Amino acid sequence: MATATTADIRQLISQMTLEEKAGLCSGLDFWNTKGIERLGIPSLMVTDGPHGLRKQQGNADHLGLHNSVPATCFPSAAGLASSWDRKLIARVGEALGAECQVENVAVLLGPGNNIKRSPLNGRNFEYFSEDPYLASEMAAHHVKGVQSQGVGTSLKHFAANNQEHRRMSVDAIIDERTLREIYLASFEGTVKQSQPWSVMCSYNQVNGEYASESHKLLTQVLRDEWGFEGFVVSDWGAVNERVKALQAGLELEMPSSGGIGDAKIVAAVNSGELPVATLDLAVERMLTFIFKSVDSRSEEAVFDQDKHHALAREVARESMVLLKNEDGILPLAKSGTLAIIGEFAKTPRYQGGGSSHVNPTKLDDAFIEMQAVAGDAASFLYAQGYELASDEVNEELLQEARDTAVKADAAVLFLGLPDRYESEGYDRSHLSLPASHLALIHAVAEVQSNIIVVLSNGSPVEMPWLPQTKAVLEGYLGGQAFGGAVADLLFGEVSPSGKLAETFPQKLSDNPSFLNFPGEGDTVEYKEGLFVGYRYYDKKEIEPLFPFGFGLSYTEFEYSNLLLDQTSIKDTDTVQVSVTVKNTGSRTGKETVQLYVSDVESSVIRPLQELKGFDKLELQPGEEREVTFTLNKRSFAYYNVKLADWHVESGMFNVAVGSSSRDIRLTAELEVVSTAKQAAKFHRNSTVGDLLANPLTEGKAKNYGSIFGMEEAMGDNPEMFLAMMKYMPLRALIGFGQGKYTEADLAEDLRELNALAGQEEVNQPGDK
Amino acid sequence: MATATTADIRQLISQMTLEEKAGLCSGLDFWNTKGIERLGIPSLMVTDGPHGLRKQQGNADHLGLHNSVPATCFPSAAGLASSWDRKLIARVGEALGAECQVENVAVLLGPGNNIKRSPLNGRNFEYFSEDPYLASEMAAHHVKGVQSQGVGTSLKHFAANNQEHRRMSVDAIIDERTLREIYLASFEGTVKQSQPWSVMCSYNQVNGEYASESHKLLTQVLRDEWGFEGFVVSDWGAVNERVKALQAGLELEMPSSGGIGDAKIVAAVNSGELPVATLDLAVERMLTFIFKSVDSRSEEAVFDQDKHHALAREVARESMVLLKNEDGILPLAKSGTLAIIGEFAKTPRYQGGGSSHVNPTKLDDAFIEMQAVAGDAASFLYAQGYELASDEVNEELLQEARDTAVKADAAVLFLGLPDRYESEGYDRSHLSLPASHLALIHAVAEVQSNIIVVLSNGSPVEMPWLPQTKAVLEGYLGGQAFGGAVADLLFGEVSPSGKLAETFPQKLSDNPSFLNFPGEGDTVEYKEGLFVGYRYYDKKEIEPLFPFGFGLSYTEFEYSNLLLDQTSIKDTDTVQVSVTVKNTGSRTGKETVQLYVSDVESSVIRPLQELKGFDKLELQPGEEREVTFTLNKRSFAYYNVKLADWHVESGMFNVAVGSSSRDIRLTAELEVVSTAKQAAKFHRNSTVGDLLANPLTEGKAKNYGSIFGMEEAMGDNPEMFLAMMKYMPLRALIGFGQGKYTEADLAEDLRELNALAGQEEVNQPGDK
Repeated sequence: MATATTADIRQLISQMTLEEKAGLCSGLDFWNTKGIERLGIPSLMVTDGPHGLRKQQGNADHLGLHNSVPATCFPSAAGLASSWDRKLIARVGEALGAECQVENVAVLLGPGNNIKRSPLNGRNFEYFSEDPYLASEMAAHHVKGVQSQGVGTSLKHFAANNQEHRRMSVDAIIDERTLREIYLASFEGTVKQSQPWSVMCSYNQVNGEYASESHKLLTQVLRDEWGFEGFVVSDWGAVNERVKALQAGLELEMPSSGGIGDAKIVAAVNSGELPVATLDLAVERMLTFIFKSVDSRSEEAVFDQDKHHALAREVARESMVLLKNEDGILPLAKSGTLAIIGEFAKTPRYQGGGSSHVNPTKLDDAFIEMQAVAGDAASFLYAQGYELASDEVNEELLQEARDTAVKADAAVLFLGLPDRYESEGYDRSHLSLPASHLALIHAVAEVQSNIIVVLSNGSPVEMPWLPQTKAVLEGYLGGQAFGGAVADLLFGEVSPSGKLAETFPQKLSDNPSFLNFPGEGDTVEYKEGLFVGYRYYDKKEIEPLFPFGFGLSYTEFEYSNLLLDQTSIKDTDTVQVSVTVKNTGSRTGKETVQLYVSDVESSVIRPLQELKGFDKLELQPGEEREVTFTLNKRSFAYYNVKLADWHVESGMFNVAVGSSSRDIRLTAELEVVSTAKQAAKFHRNSTVGDLLANPLTEGKAKNYGSIFGMEEAMGDNPEMFLAMMKYMPLRALIGFGQGKYTEADLAEDLRELNALAGQEEVNQPGDK
Repeated sequence: MATATTADIRQLISQMTLEEKAGLCSGLDFWNTKGIERLGIPSLMVTDGPHGLRKQQGNADHLGLHNSVPATCFPSAAGLASSWDRKLIARVGEALGAECQVENVAVLLGPGNNIKRSPLNGRNFEYFSEDPYLASEMAAHHVKGVQSQGVGTSLKHFAANNQEHRRMSVDAIIDERTLREIYLASFEGTVKQSQPWSVMCSYNQVNGEYASESHKLLTQVLRDEWGFEGFVVSDWGAVNERVKALQAGLELEMPSSGGIGDAKIVAAVNSGELPVATLDLAVERMLTFIFKSVDSRSEEAVFDQDKHHALAREVARESMVLLKNEDGILPLAKSGTLAIIGEFAKTPRYQGGGSSHVNPTKLDDAFIEMQAVAGDAASFLYAQGYELASDEVNEELLQEARDTAVKADAAVLFLGLPDRYESEGYDRSHLSLPASHLALIHAVAEVQSNIIVVLSNGSPVEMPWLPQTKAVLEGYLGGQAFGGAVADLLFGEVSPSGKLAETFPQKLSDNPSFLNFPGEGDTVEYKEGLFVGYRYYDKKEIEPLFPFGFGLSYTEFEYSNLLLDQTSIKDTDTVQVSVTVKNTGSRTGKETVQLYVSDVESSVIRPLQELKGFDKLELQPGEEREVTFTLNKRSFAYYNVKLADWHVESGMFNVAVGSSSRDIRLTAELEVVSTAKQAAKFHRNSTVGDLLANPLTEGKAKNYGSIFGMEEAMGDNPEMFLAMMKYMPLRALIGFGQGKYTEADLAEDLRELNALAGQEEVNQPGDK
């Protein structure tokens, strides 16, 4: 059946038995949906791997335990996000989609878009950022890229799956505002922008309910509010009660439950517990997907492994972040002697463990790539430095490293976290490099002062050894072309342009979730609330090791001419912000211009600044260009729990543009006026101060002081008397009035005050 | 009627009209209870002031706005607590009680015992500590002292009144464990140890309910759990709905509501809404108090103002904390020239604003007292330095200060917070000294390197100027003998012995409540949870400016021979801890030995250490003495919300003894074994890891791996496979088992597992 209409699909459903309908709501096996041959419904393959295809040939599992067909391994999401490059990520998506078409895969399970709450999360390498705006922009372009090839994506893990510890049972307790502004926002932006074919619900519970059974998450928020049109698939094994999950909006249970889930659905329909219309709707969504996939199938698809490898190298270059470059030691000269030290130089760690584990088409060796880029004028030495398989310090290898380093002009140390340190399935318990890597730095530093560290890791590490180095390049998990990209950057073929999509803390205890991660028993409370990542470090005035948005270049950029096209807008309007950026250095380079918004004064608790725009641009030496951003209501809003909506509090906002969250170059002010109105509702516990703060009731409120005989009452502590009045609930006037003010007076006053106040902007400070 | 029995009182109640009964449940006016002449029930006076009597003569108010009869003004609670001296505080209580008897006051309204959540709280000077154990010990001895004189106390403000901002309407949202371990614990210890005649309920709401209307707080916790036998009085104006408050357990509404509250009670009884038995019980409690007070009246009471002043001076000496003493600049020699600078030297700030404002019997002038103590060999200069009434920098006064300081061998600067900076009624918004005081330090430092700062303030200030000083003496609000006590300490008549009862942060944003203080609208969320004061700074590894328990002396102490009388106890046992302390310096001094307990490993989130014992002892040079502490269940317990009880998790505990929370000298280990048992309840979402962690179910759990064909399933990522198994809920075995494991198998297994587990200790990690 080609190009099935809704009518076609409904017609088809009418021909299906109850058992066939239930069957479409779970997998055939580990990786395939069920087909129904008699009705021409095909079985389709869905498979793992947001940064590369992981199509298993033999034993099926969801853990990356077994091998898969060769595919291009791109940098994982932590790296991709550091590129801050929407178009580049879309190109990665396109390449991935092409590879899926070749392998006849209908849906690539990803991207992952959970927020990095703690650097300990073992799966952080698969996620983009601590910031929901950056994360949603990255994920949306990934989805667009893949889906442009007629292959679906599955945005995961929805929602609040921010740790691996007890991930299948833990209950994440998150207040509604934090959920909306941080943990759902990364998904919201992606769904609204890119409409992924599917969303994968997470294993964990959210506020007492399994994500797989949350009607609020899977239907109310995802479909009704955000307009999601695809199907929801369970994370592999995330279904707790099948019928409840179906009612909540979970269409597809994976993997197959061997018929157990299907039987429960059939029984529930037969008993009347489950309306057949609910099942029919789920089947309609599954068939819509299946026929869309069939229509999108490109039988003749091919892909060029070399081109994809070149793309992987380009992407890796853009993803790596230069964290330190003292004395301009980088880029390295293509002459002299370099000591390359550390087993990672020859056996790279280029991807994370678990479901995203890809079998690469080829794999760069940094030692070889560096020689290729440097050419014959440079000579290279190598020392292993440590054993990858063990954390133990090997004195012989250290001595060899010293002996090698001492002969060179500089030493490039390849360090990081071995596979076993971070993976799907479990979290880290500390932020340290292995003892053997630490020992290596110290050993080399004894004989060599020009140390360059190249890191391979999926999430921040602490760097007590930073002073012993001249340069640090954060390579993240750079994919199969990691080695080539490192060579390009170290020798200055390209200037580094990655910026951190997450804060690197000085120590673990600085992290906002530290006191409550990973929770106790099966409960984890997100008590830091909104203050995730830089939102916390900024407000708490904690100096990070490296701040959000930070990354060095081999050239320099100057910002000028920050302009807003309006000085005051309504919250229903948009405002254009432009700024000019000039490359004032001597090399071509790319700069990611970041735009942060702050509410100057707010009656609710807000972060000091929030990322609301960014753009990456390449500039030749001396070249300048204007960048333009459009800000809308959401750029200024917070989630108002009482309104159950986004709300802008009228007032002044700061628009700041800079090179990182802690390197703001220019700021401008803007007034935003709310169009939301709501009647002020005064009650017996509204305070005199609340009335004084409202121009409509101020006059009336001023009279209340007379109940106490103002002047006499002030005594010798007027500040205190005024504070007492300000915070006094109206009903307390009765007691303090000693008979001069009665319950009847209060009732009459409340009528009058509420009439006076009429319609006013929501969220006066005392509103409750 | 002398020595009324319960029977007498009930007989009396039977003779009362409904209106008379209702009348006894509210005040006659601002400061007196109602009497009933025909029945011989007297009107009694209750009055303000935990650190001194504030009996008003003229206009009555609750805000310290108007003057009162002269009374001895002792250091306020922030200072008293810094003495860490139970006996001394009891002696203060005795003196206060004696003064109340002279003035015929039945109840002295205090002490205040709220926890110092934020240094910004305007009323912190009236509270003891950030630590509930220290706070409850201090308050209990205060209560015992006052009540030993036949005068009642009113422990306030119950509960969670930890800010002045919107104090009459704000709702403090606090999780149950934090409430129990921190915010209620300071009251609990006081009530259980000292049985105050009354407890004063606070203005605010706690978890959505006014404290004045909380049956949980006023009856269930206070009376039923803690055994409180007295009456509950409202903070002045804290009654919201009178009938609801009476039902919750609030006997006395203050001040008089002019008959409005009484009428509501009468109406509620008449309508049947309020059982008359509830009213009778309240009246019985009021009469029990009234006749106890009558019986305790001492008509011939007198007090010696000079003796009480001398006590005030002794107490002030013990309360002040020496924070810095570089180059041993203190004690000062009684010779040479001293510049005394700062208006506080002649016009001391010695108490806080608000209801605790006392009219002192006499008032020391530090400038005069220093001359008296130093004698004729020393000469003294004075400069005003700043204007008390203004924050503005006065250049003339600065120049005068420079000119004075340059002539002296050292300069003693009297600095601090003016009255308007901290008071009942409002909170501070920053921790800085006034700009005029800051300017003074800088000005004097230009010409004089020997700077000694004496601080007058009720709560911590930040000290960016610390490096410019050689010594800092924290004087708190030292009462009327502040000046004499400062003289005694600076010239070494006595060695300083105060220790901080609260952490001094380096900056405001370091404070644990910073992100959520004072809340938004009428809600304040205590998201820092248990991590209040040092519990936060310790766990977050934040270096405080000065840690909890810190204070210097002019001599030194050595700790040795830490001994526990047992190495393992049941949680129903006690253990004796002894340690020897020796004065190894050359001056007589006092040391407060502090004992902290840590749970070495816990399945629940706990602070790193908690104060569970302290003792202050005076030692001559070379003298040594053994100190003994008794630890019991509560020393090791946390509040288990599920059990609704205190619980000790079996295992090893560290017992640490030291001179401050960050100067631990000796530690020992102790095993504590829980006697609490509770059946383990496994359910479909218990994890395989939970079973493996329980010796009773471990064997059964090991079989589950075989469902996956263990060896083959491990693949090349065994860490991940094992983690996956550990965190897997039993119900997920059904899906992953692909038919090898069914719902029926699971049901059968759960029956077997729960039978196997039987009775085991509560709180396995996965318990839920």
